[in-house]
Parts: sequence; structure tokens; C-alpha cells
Amino acid sequence: MKAIKTVSFIGSGNVATNLAKAFFENGLTIEYVYSQKMKNASLLANSVGSKSIDKVDNVNFKSDLIVIALKDDVIELVLKKITFNNQLIVHTSGSFNSEKLAFFSKNYGCFYPFQTFRKEIKADLSQIYFFIEANEKQNEECLLQLATLFSKQVVKMNSSERKSLHIAGVGVNNFTHYLLSMTKQYCEENNLKTDYLSDLLNQTINNSFYKENSLQLQTGPARRGDALIIKEHLLELDNTPKYLKVYKIISQLILDEFHEGSIKL
Amino acid sequence: MKAIKTVSFIGSGNVATNLAKAFFENGLTIEYVYSQKMKNASLLANSVGSKSIDKVDNVNFKSDLIVIALKDDVIELVLKKITFNNQLIVHTSGSFNSEKLAFFSKNYGCFYPFQTFRKEIKADLSQIYFFIEANEKQNEECLLQLATLFSKQVVKMNSSERKSLHIAGVGVNNFTHYLLSMTKQYCEENNLKTDYLSDLLNQTINNSFYKENSLQLQTGPARRGDALIIKEHLLELDNTPKYLKVYKIISQLILDEFHEGSIKL
Repeated sequence: MKAIKTVSFIGSGNVATNLAKAFFENGLTIEYVYSQKMKNASLLANSVGSKSIDKVDNVNFKSDLIVIALKDDVIELVLKKITFNNQLIVHTSGSFNSEKLAFFSKNYGCFYPFQTFRKEIKADLSQIYFFIEANEKQNEECLLQLATLFSKQVVKMNSSERKSLHIAGVGVNNFTHYLLSMTKQYCEENNLKTDYLSDLLNQTINNSFYKENSLQLQTGPARRGDALIIKEHLLELDNTPKYLKVYKIISQLILDEFHEGSIKL
Repeated sequence: MKAIKTVSFIGSGNVATNLAKAFFENGLTIEYVYSQKMKNASLLANSVGSKSIDKVDNVNFKSDLIVIALKDDVIELVLKKITFNNQLIVHTSGSFNSEKLAFFSKNYGCFYPFQTFRKEIKADLSQIYFFIEANEKQNEECLLQLATLFSKQVVKMNSSERKSLHIAGVGVNNFTHYLLSMTKQYCEENNLKTDYLSDLLNQTINNSFYKENSLQLQTGPARRGDALIIKEHLLELDNTPKYLKVYKIISQLILDEFHEGSIKL
């Protein structure tokens, strides 16, 4: 098995940025960073000693590994323009089916770091699960070895399981993020210290995600079917329409869960 | 100022249970526990050496403090049946306006422990904020002293601020609890280890509730307007209709936030 030493990135977004920097810091050579916007490609390329490109048509990629970190719906569109030499190519997506890469190279797989990334926040990859898939044993070994450079939590997983994991991740991360950000915004608008809510938030996480049958531990006005308080709150939220909308919609979800459609807001 | 030594509880639910037990463990005498269901009153009364009652009409309450831990919409109905001797009476609700207690006693206030309680889970009150309000300075001092028995985090707060705090608490606690419980249920149905998601959840809490302008750090398919992935996920969720509903509704909220109604699921 030949260890991966050179890597190119197709994409320069949140995932590409965090992976490319981690690869670079661990001694790998980053050869190309592609983005359809040269400005974005350069920003990442400059920080990892790589060439930046905004066209892929005339590039002869020779890297050991090509990482495709694009939105799912443009992966195939971009790959069609590239001439590969059967190098190992991997996508980084929770929901993309790895088999679709077979059209572009004999060697392909998935290198999925299970975390939320932002370009501007450097992630600690050592705490992150990496989920690996490859078309054959040798490629799988290469990818496992690569992921182990950063993390002890490296797991083989097929495309179908990975899709379920991604869906769960959307709940744990994206939905929770939205909800808590909206609540935080409401606190700021009402001069409430977020510190007041920290212990409640910790307790909530413990009760909801780490306890058996946690749905049965649900509390609050909607759980009790306390329409009086809910309506008072909706009135109070009249001047903060965005939080009002969130409050109403999620209260209705909980009412439907526990009171079978008998209370409509 | 006379320190509070004897307490009666009107109500025997999640809040009453946790407070009565904490008072009892701190050397206070619990005189009466009322519930309209004798079984519930007895269950709590027996664990705090108190008398249980399911009628309030003929009881001559002499306790230094009467704690009313009832649903907001029945507080006044129950209090109308009680003859008070102008003892200090407090409610424990985030949203109830304390002034409404003036009708029943010259001495009244609010004793609001800001945490989610369940009868069956003993809460650590030392980590909990207590928000206190009283009709006059002396009563306020009594309640502050009482709360300080359990917690160092005791704050004076009026009814209007407390209502905003309660609304924020519903978001941080009830809504988050529901969302994470539903996601956990989905993980169990798909044999996904919750351990895979722990680090992602920790990172989510940090990014959403403890960072400035956290809404701008939102990620995920709905944030990107990636309708292809969202629709694939909805198809995949066809056999888990409850999580499907949550996924669809919250994705739409995020789409509306970042894509101004241009994508409808």
C-alpha cells in the first residue's frame, strides 16, 4: 500500500478549508485548490502552499488523492470536466452515493469528517469521527491511514448508513443550531444574560440526548397542553416576529405529539 | 426579619416535588402537601414527613410560607378556596404575574427556580438560578435568604422580565429537548450510536449559544439552499413519519430565513 503524500482539492469551502489545512500541517503536499471563483481558490491555496485554479479542463492532476468537497448537486457536473488517471478520488459528503464516482475513476471512496465546519473557525480534528468508504480494500486502507493522522475515531461505513447518519446530524447540528441561535437572539433583544440559561441548557442536553426514552421526559407548556401560557407568550412575542414564528411552529409540533391535534395555535 | 421555618405546598408536581424535598433536606418543616388527587399528594407528603390533603376548604394553613406550584390557569381557582392569614404566599411560575396574588394575601411573591424538573429525577439545586420577586422588601429578604440555602445564584427579577426569561427557557429547554429526543429516536431506529454525534452536538452548542451573531454561523443543506439533499432526506424519512415532519418543518424555517421564501418543500 502506497501512503498518500500529495492531495488536490476540488472545492474551497468550509470542509475543504479545514481538511486542506489539516493535511498541510501533517506534512502532506497540497498541489491544487480549485474553485470556480479564483478569489476563493487563492485564499485557501495561499494558506497551504498550493496552486489555485478556477478551471479544471486543462489541468493534469497527478496527486495521489483528489478530494471533492463540493455541494452534492454539482459534484458530477465538475468531475465531467476533469481528466483523471485513475487516481483515488473521494467525496466528503454525508448523502452522496460513492458509487457515482465509479464513472470517473477506478479508485474512489468517501472521506467524511463528521463535524460542522466554518472556514473561519479552525476545528480540532482529533475529536472528530471520520467515516470511510472505498471501492476496494487497498483504497480503504489508504484512507483509514490518512484519517488516523488526525483522529482516533475512524469508522468504516457504507453510503446507506452514512445517509442516515447525515440526517441525524442535520437534527443534532443544523436544527439545534438554528433554534438556539434564534433563542440567543431573543435573549439579546430582551437584555437577558445567556448565563442565566446555561445550566438549563446543559440539563436539557443530558435529559434529551443521553437518557433512555427521552421524549417521555419532555416538559413545558406545550407538553402540558397549557394553551393559556402559550397564547400569552405568543402575544408577548408580537414585536419579535421571527422568534414568534419559531415558537408557534415548534409548540404546535409538541402539542401534536402529546395532545393528538386537540389544540391548534 | 423572621426566617422561614415551616412551608406548605399547594401542588405536588415536578416543581413542588423537587422544592419540597430540598426544603425538607435543609431542615425546614413541610406541613401540608395538597393535590386534587390524594395519591399524588401522599406520594410527596410521605417523602417529606408532611400531611397530605386533597381538599383545601377546611384547612387552617399556619405555615410561614405557602408555595403554590400549580399550572398557571388553575392558580386562582384553587386559591379562592383557601383562607389565608396573610402569610407569605409565592408562586413558582415563569409567566404568572405576581400581582394577581395580592387578592389572596398582603404578603406575596415569586420563587422561580429556573430549571426543568421531573419528579423522578433529583435536581442539583446548587447549580440553579432562583429568580425572586416580592411585594415588599421584608418578604423579598425572606425569599432571598431561603433561596440562598440551596443556591448562590439568586437574582431579583420582576414579572415582566421573568416572562421573557421563561420564553427564552422554552426555546433552550422545551424546544431543544423535543428536537434532540426526536433525533435520538431516529438514531435508535437506524442503529446509529449516539456516541458518533456527541462531539457534533458539543460543537453545535458552542457555536450556536455561546458565539456572537451565531445565526450567521448556521450550516447545513437548508442554509445552503441545497434542495436536492433535503428532498433525498425527505424520501429517506418516508418510513419514519414523525421525524419526517420535524425535518420538513424546521428545514422550511431555515430556508425561509436564508432564502426568503424562494424554496418551498
